[in-house]
Amino acid sequence: MASINFWFSIGSTYSYLTVMRLPAVAEAQGIEIGWRPFDVRRIMKAQNNTPFVGKPEKTAYMWRDIERRAAGYGIEAALPAPYPIANLALANQVALLGLREGWGVDYVQATYRRWFQDGQPAGEAPNLPDSLREIGQDPDAVLARAESPEIVAALEAETETARDLGIFGAPSFVVGHELFWGDDRLEDAIGWLRRHRL
Amino acid sequence: MASINFWFSIGSTYSYLTVMRLPAVAEAQGIEIGWRPFDVRRIMKAQNNTPFVGKPEKTAYMWRDIERRAAGYGIEAALPAPYPIANLALANQVALLGLREGWGVDYVQATYRRWFQDGQPAGEAPNLPDSLREIGQDPDAVLARAESPEIVAALEAETETARDLGIFGAPSFVVGHELFWGDDRLEDAIGWLRRHRL
Repeated sequence: MASINFWFSIGSTYSYLTVMRLPAVAEAQGIEIGWRPFDVRRIMKAQNNTPFVGKPEKTAYMWRDIERRAAGYGIEAALPAPYPIANLALANQVALLGLREGWGVDYVQATYRRWFQDGQPAGEAPNLPDSLREIGQDPDAVLARAESPEIVAALEAETETARDLGIFGAPSFVVGHELFWGDDRLEDAIGWLRRHRL
Repeated sequence: MASINFWFSIGSTYSYLTVMRLPAVAEAQGIEIGWRPFDVRRIMKAQNNTPFVGKPEKTAYMWRDIERRAAGYGIEAALPAPYPIANLALANQVALLGLREGWGVDYVQATYRRWFQDGQPAGEAPNLPDSLREIGQDPDAVLARAESPEIVAALEAETETARDLGIFGAPSFVVGHELFWGDDRLEDAIGWLRRHRL
């Protein structure tokens, strides 16, 4: 069982930092991570919580902050990336399918790289099919499965679970019943795990 | 000249953490801090950026996050504190006056303690007069000066300066031309200062 659940949406900007650094952090710390894609936009709309759209000053800061922190982590980034992306649900349906089939983390990293380093929006061509091909998946076959009623319903169910956990943004980390929001709270989440021996 | 300008509003919740820990951090690091009160609410309203009001899920998380981080810093807190406060401008006019007269930091810490430890809103009785008495100031005399046209205009001018710097929330730190937002970016601001020898 995962010690920390990492709730993310492809489409969230700060999730880029976590997606790129989490595997190495988890390995170094010996922590099992559950990668849990959900539809953060659906929750934000329902909660009237739109952090960046229509807020140019805050948006400008967000890109600069991500740029600085990516540099601090040694993560490449060409910013600003196209934002917001149009097909958030599809991008995350593919992630959910991939996590079930064992290629999810590779896809999430590949699609974020194309989005944040090459300027190609996630969830659409050319990013989506090229990312799938890069990790050895057939784009047409994957998209057929990712758009099936089963996967659509599974992402909606995960989104409901996220909402029930009190999640309102991405990335979020859940340790036991404790919620931590933001890439900059990953270390707090790990510290919580250690202190409570979960 | 200050190496880091600390832009804050009494009325901001996360500013509590910075207000309580900053003097010790600055002394340990040998850094000169400029304490710069401004009216964050005026900027947020103009930018349609209301982070918590009307957002119960995010607000609940904010209190829990502050509680955890305060505990990590060894800062006492009885949360949630009354929020939002009614007289944000007045609370910060007093701070601006106090910083000119040499008792500003003591007042800001005293009023935040009463707000976040005793549950008394800042900017009104009993918090405001009791905080002033505690630090050896006469409440009636201070309030007369704090509500003078000069101090009202000075806070508005500082708020305009903050907006020109790209500030959209509190607390914020400005190092040279670089902006850092949030108590959790204080260490980033100090790191920036060190790397750029400002």
